[in-house]
Amino acid sequence: MTRSFAFTLKARDGKARAGAIATPRGLIRTPAFMPVGTGATVKAMFPEDVGSSGADIILANTYHLMLRPGAERIARLGGLHQFMHWEKPILTDSGGYQVMSLAKLRRIDEQGVTFQSHIDGATVELTPERAIEVQCLLGADIQMVLDECTPFPASRDEAKSSLELSLRWAERSKAAFATRAASGQALFGIVQGSIYPDLREHSARALLEIGFDGYAVGGLAVGEGQGAMLDMVEVATTILPDERPRYLMGVGTPEDLLLSIARGIDMFDCVMPTRSGRHCQAFTWGGRLNLRNARYAEDATPLDPESACPAAQYEKAYLHHLVRSGETLGAMLLSYANVQFYQELMAQAREAIAAGRLAGFTEELRRRYAKSSDESD
Amino acid sequence: MTRSFAFTLKARDGKARAGAIATPRGLIRTPAFMPVGTGATVKAMFPEDVGSSGADIILANTYHLMLRPGAERIARLGGLHQFMHWEKPILTDSGGYQVMSLAKLRRIDEQGVTFQSHIDGATVELTPERAIEVQCLLGADIQMVLDECTPFPASRDEAKSSLELSLRWAERSKAAFATRAASGQALFGIVQGSIYPDLREHSARALLEIGFDGYAVGGLAVGEGQGAMLDMVEVATTILPDERPRYLMGVGTPEDLLLSIARGIDMFDCVMPTRSGRHCQAFTWGGRLNLRNARYAEDATPLDPESACPAAQYEKAYLHHLVRSGETLGAMLLSYANVQFYQELMAQAREAIAAGRLAGFTEELRRRYAKSSDESD
Repeated sequence: MTRSFAFTLKARDGKARAGAIATPRGLIRTPAFMPVGTGATVKAMFPEDVGSSGADIILANTYHLMLRPGAERIARLGGLHQFMHWEKPILTDSGGYQVMSLAKLRRIDEQGVTFQSHIDGATVELTPERAIEVQCLLGADIQMVLDECTPFPASRDEAKSSLELSLRWAERSKAAFATRAASGQALFGIVQGSIYPDLREHSARALLEIGFDGYAVGGLAVGEGQGAMLDMVEVATTILPDERPRYLMGVGTPEDLLLSIARGIDMFDCVMPTRSGRHCQAFTWGGRLNLRNARYAEDATPLDPESACPAAQYEKAYLHHLVRSGETLGAMLLSYANVQFYQELMAQAREAIAAGRLAGFTEELRRRYAKSSDESD
Repeated sequence: MTRSFAFTLKARDGKARAGAIATPRGLIRTPAFMPVGTGATVKAMFPEDVGSSGADIILANTYHLMLRPGAERIARLGGLHQFMHWEKPILTDSGGYQVMSLAKLRRIDEQGVTFQSHIDGATVELTPERAIEVQCLLGADIQMVLDECTPFPASRDEAKSSLELSLRWAERSKAAFATRAASGQALFGIVQGSIYPDLREHSARALLEIGFDGYAVGGLAVGEGQGAMLDMVEVATTILPDERPRYLMGVGTPEDLLLSIARGIDMFDCVMPTRSGRHCQAFTWGGRLNLRNARYAEDATPLDPESACPAAQYEKAYLHHLVRSGETLGAMLLSYANVQFYQELMAQAREAIAAGRLAGFTEELRRRYAKSSDESD
């Protein structure tokens, strides 16, 4: 197995790419979807099942883990992979997004961000240097620079001064990473700029100047709408270099993923499959289903006969009973089925790219989802 | 595979017995512990894992299933085994115990019990005949007569009139079972009589007169204390016939099980392993542990290195983190580890009986549990 981080493109279909990222902990087939393991667990799933669903990499949250159980504790226990029984690659975010969405009494200045823990109220400081230190203590294979996740909506001036701060933090992150990271670990920069194409362009070019192992597009899926999101993705991927992986953060629905892949994105993360699974929603090859719906009370057909996931072979009537009764097994089965659906979606997207038929595959999926999806509750 | 129900004794050690119950759905090795699958799910466990833990049979609750999703619905969906993806034997209780503990506005008369559902307030009638009808609709391999679970404490007179009612219901249950049950299904009677030895004796002898495929000891583990419980078990097993399985309902701790096996009990059910698993408690070969305890925060040793359960290989520090964070995976792992511990305990008890060393095995387990168990919280 390689000791370094390397990205290889294997096929193209328009702007879409299929390839693989080699890391010391294994290969990540792209386009890749990373299930979210916020608190060192992909919620309601055994790690073996996350692996057998087809996931090559998961995401873990620096913010949550630095607060509980603590990065130093995880390091003493042998690192995050050993701690959570996951041997394949892990990407960690930098914590910036959760500081904005979860922490109380946060204060941002040039140095970094100071906030109160949402768990115990403790005052915590997060700087670009500390974010890298934490990610290295966790042993993350792919690390993210600390950035300010620009609120939405933001004026052009707000977005500009926010992204400039993020660029200065990106430089400091890179310097900290250079002194701390182990061989084969990678650092990604994050393109910001809200919904202003010229700011997105400026952010991307400035990050290229600094130079990273991969580039993320951040600050999207925050309320701007699918059209604006895809426009911003396109601005970024037009500038970002072909030979580095591109990661769209926090996105999204199956359709969002395919449309972003068509614009040149290689990696995704999102809580949607697991969070939906805990809220009675299933993603299937037949559409999006709400298992609370009374129509499933005596539906003896499997959740998703087209899926290879063991959990998707359970009958809808049983899943309906479990979710109506608030049984944990309902969340376990739907989370597993949803995570595997997302992996199967990525596998089919990779095949479609190799065969030059991504557009047709995307159209077929949209048709299925438009036709047979339940209202969500 | 046999089409009939048959119990074979293979070894004895004092009053303790090891054997097997043959059923059309497979063999039940005895002494047997039945994990409880109240609402058609052993809580927080995949059915495959219940099977691989070593369980030959599970218990499901007539009361819960008749209210939700309904026995007729389960029958239309192919029966309980198919509904809940469990192919091995299922024992169903008769619903009497839950009517007493969960339902509102219950009224008992000669005919049966009328109560309000704790789920939606609907008025429901449960008679001996309906209890058998429901169990047959579910397709239960071992069914229980409807009885009145005598409250504790009860005066001698109360206990006597309660058990007399239960005996009349037992006769009606048997008659209903004779007209409805499929080949190979079995019906067990239930010995009542509170803590009065002569009433227990009377109940057991009267049930023998009626004649059942097996005999349960009910109305215990309700506050009478371990000493009184074991005395009542001994009264019953002295009378109950050697050639029928004996089932102690709703019991108990690992020690309770071994001491009851020594008095001639063959089968048990209890929510303890699964309920404890959802409340941070682990049963291990090293004792009973409370994973919330701060002492485990950096304990990198496996939960139970002596167990073959995959879940017991997770480190205590990780389990501590999961339960402190309220993560579902904590309940999933501890439930699995506890259910498998109970199965391993039964397997070792069977071996100890075959080797004539049950007393020594029991003493060793008591010593381990006394020495190293955490306070429960």
